[in-house]
Amino acid sequence: MRCVSLTTDFGQVDWFVGVMKGVILERVPEAQIVDLNHGVPSGDIVAGAFSLLNGYRYFPKQTVHVAVVDPGVGSNRPAIAVDTRDYFFVGPDNGVLSWALRQEEVRAVHRVDNENYFRQPVSRTFHGRDVFAPVAAELSAGVSIAHLGSEYGDWKRLAWSDVSQESDEVHGEIVYIDRFGNCITNIPEAMAMTGAQIKIPGELTIELMECYADADKHQALAVAGSSGFVELAINCGNAQEQLNLETGAKVVLRAGS
Amino acid sequence: MRCVSLTTDFGQVDWFVGVMKGVILERVPEAQIVDLNHGVPSGDIVAGAFSLLNGYRYFPKQTVHVAVVDPGVGSNRPAIAVDTRDYFFVGPDNGVLSWALRQEEVRAVHRVDNENYFRQPVSRTFHGRDVFAPVAAELSAGVSIAHLGSEYGDWKRLAWSDVSQESDEVHGEIVYIDRFGNCITNIPEAMAMTGAQIKIPGELTIELMECYADADKHQALAVAGSSGFVELAINCGNAQEQLNLETGAKVVLRAGS
Amino acid sequence: MRCVSLTTDFGQVDWFVGVMKGVILERVPEAQIVDLNHGVPSGDIVAGAFSLLNGYRYFPKQTVHVAVVDPGVGSNRPAIAVDTRDYFFVGPDNGVLSWALRQEEVRAVHRVDNENYFRQPVSRTFHGRDVFAPVAAELSAGVSIAHLGSEYGDWKRLAWSDVSQESDEVHGEIVYIDRFGNCITNIPEAMAMTGAQIKIPGELTIELMECYADADKHQALAVAGSSGFVELAINCGNAQEQLNLETGAKVVLRAGS
Repeated sequence: MRCVSLTTDFGQVDWFVGVMKGVILERVPEAQIVDLNHGVPSGDIVAGAFSLLNGYRYFPKQTVHVAVVDPGVGSNRPAIAVDTRDYFFVGPDNGVLSWALRQEEVRAVHRVDNENYFRQPVSRTFHGRDVFAPVAAELSAGVSIAHLGSEYGDWKRLAWSDVSQESDEVHGEIVYIDRFGNCITNIPEAMAMTGAQIKIPGELTIELMECYADADKHQALAVAGSSGFVELAINCGNAQEQLNLETGAKVVLRAGS
Repeated sequence: MRCVSLTTDFGQVDWFVGVMKGVILERVPEAQIVDLNHGVPSGDIVAGAFSLLNGYRYFPKQTVHVAVVDPGVGSNRPAIAVDTRDYFFVGPDNGVLSWALRQEEVRAVHRVDNENYFRQPVSRTFHGRDVFAPVAAELSAGVSIAHLGSEYGDWKRLAWSDVSQESDEVHGEIVYIDRFGNCITNIPEAMAMTGAQIKIPGELTIELMECYADADKHQALAVAGSSGFVELAINCGNAQEQLNLETGAKVVLRAGS
Repeated sequence: MRCVSLTTDFGQVDWFVGVMKGVILERVPEAQIVDLNHGVPSGDIVAGAFSLLNGYRYFPKQTVHVAVVDPGVGSNRPAIAVDTRDYFFVGPDNGVLSWALRQEEVRAVHRVDNENYFRQPVSRTFHGRDVFAPVAAELSAGVSIAHLGSEYGDWKRLAWSDVSQESDEVHGEIVYIDRFGNCITNIPEAMAMTGAQIKIPGELTIELMECYADADKHQALAVAGSSGFVELAINCGNAQEQLNLETGAKVVLRAGS
């Protein structure tokens, strides 16, 4: 039985996630279902894509990754299922899967429109329950994505904001802020050499260090984060709040002198 | 082994839910335990009842549904266990189970007072741990509710606020607001014909549409929600905040002309 | 297979907890993983220690309890694994395990520094993923803590603030506030005799009662809580907010007259 991971913007304060699990277990009583992240901000496809990008690869091979951040639910936006060499992915075709897929060898993408696999009747507002959960259950039980619908080439890629380099400067931006207030940028950690400095909004410059505790308590620092990107943090503090940062804010990394 | 679902107002910021699971697993190591909803507002029996109503039926048959929203814990309020044709329910006898039970064929209701099934000593403040978790474990392992205590007829029904109809108007109210700010009313979706309009507080009138994305971005709409009730929403927005709505607010649905 | 419990300050709004589970399941596909508490305030070792203290003993014997509240991650603070008669514990050596360990018969404490058991490469910011999850998986599969590193005697004990007694008064303080706003003190319930009164900040005195519902609605009370300590509450209310209390606040219990 393949593991199933769930990434949604459903939060943990209603019955939506629980119901998806009920639907999966009704079909596959022994399913191993793991919450990857249900705290994606409401309708925030970018945060959903970034969550999946940072989480999917730590799961057992053949895991079925389900992502439901789906403001277009019930409209004519397609749903897709993807088979990569190592994983399966299911979700709306709005880009939420696309940053994870950039990292993988995509073998096949199919539309999910074979209603035989859906829960009936299909609501117009909760495909997590009526489409994605039952399809994930089938995939976890070994059904091929080819049964779910026709091949589909033109799936949506979310733009990834690449850093730009000018002489000894790397220009990037903040792409995600976590619960600690740590601000994750799009600057790959490989670009973060010892001695580098990061200029952030507000004319502040902070040093790249090796771990949070290398900074004094309540001091700002940059660090090669666990996602493989440079992140901005405050040791024992909240960088977002205390430095007044937000996603999209521009940062400049300068090589150390 | 029967699946166990948990609905509580314990939130996810303390050890209460984890401890209930530990107690269940100590008795039934292979238990399949699913969080249905732990975000019920503190002590809000109505929100707990509505969560259970909307969630329970998507679980595998014979699931043991546990609901612990229990401001009267430790007092003389009884605990009950219910056997319906398709499910089992356990919780305090304060109405939290009753809206789900209205939908089911109730076969037997028993008090839960046989202390042999409890964790000892039984605290006066946490029956989720000492009464409901161990009893749920026993039920999941196949124990009959008849062992838990004597038959009990006079269990508490929570009033359900029915809509009223006058000529072409249906008068209802908001009964639950979800994490998206969508406001779920008590108007059954069968009453929501194409072209209908909903009058909400503040003299606003909004159109019934088929899905969120049928409205312009940031436009208000009504929709037949996944719970089987009409709900008020804003496409890519938060209806509760932006329309200043709250539970109990009156709404009037008018048939389209 | 031993059960694994997780206590962290990762919250439920990012992918961190999900990734730890993925890493465990990759090594032990049948692992039974339970969230004990992910709502520990960011970096709050005391709240993490108190959560673990109150939760660990309700799990099946031999459970592997993992606690990751770890502001010093990536620095030279050691990680430890502990074998008690009934449980295993893994976490950073910053005291987060120590209040639970006070209750147990500690048989062996080892450093966790055998990198063969780690996920490679080991990041400097997320040992939950790279160290604690893989080690927990190995322990759940039966590996002895002796394989994880050398014996380690000088592990860190967090100070426990004992109550002091003067004639008929017990002087204590608030150590934890839960999601209901109930304020848990360090006064053992055995010291709370019927008729006792508690003086709290603001010159208020409240009565010890047997359960929340013994107080009038919205009235303050003290109660022998489920953790084994006296706690301050408001029936159907929030004691923290309404009485303006915080952790560290002093309270005095007086025997009843």
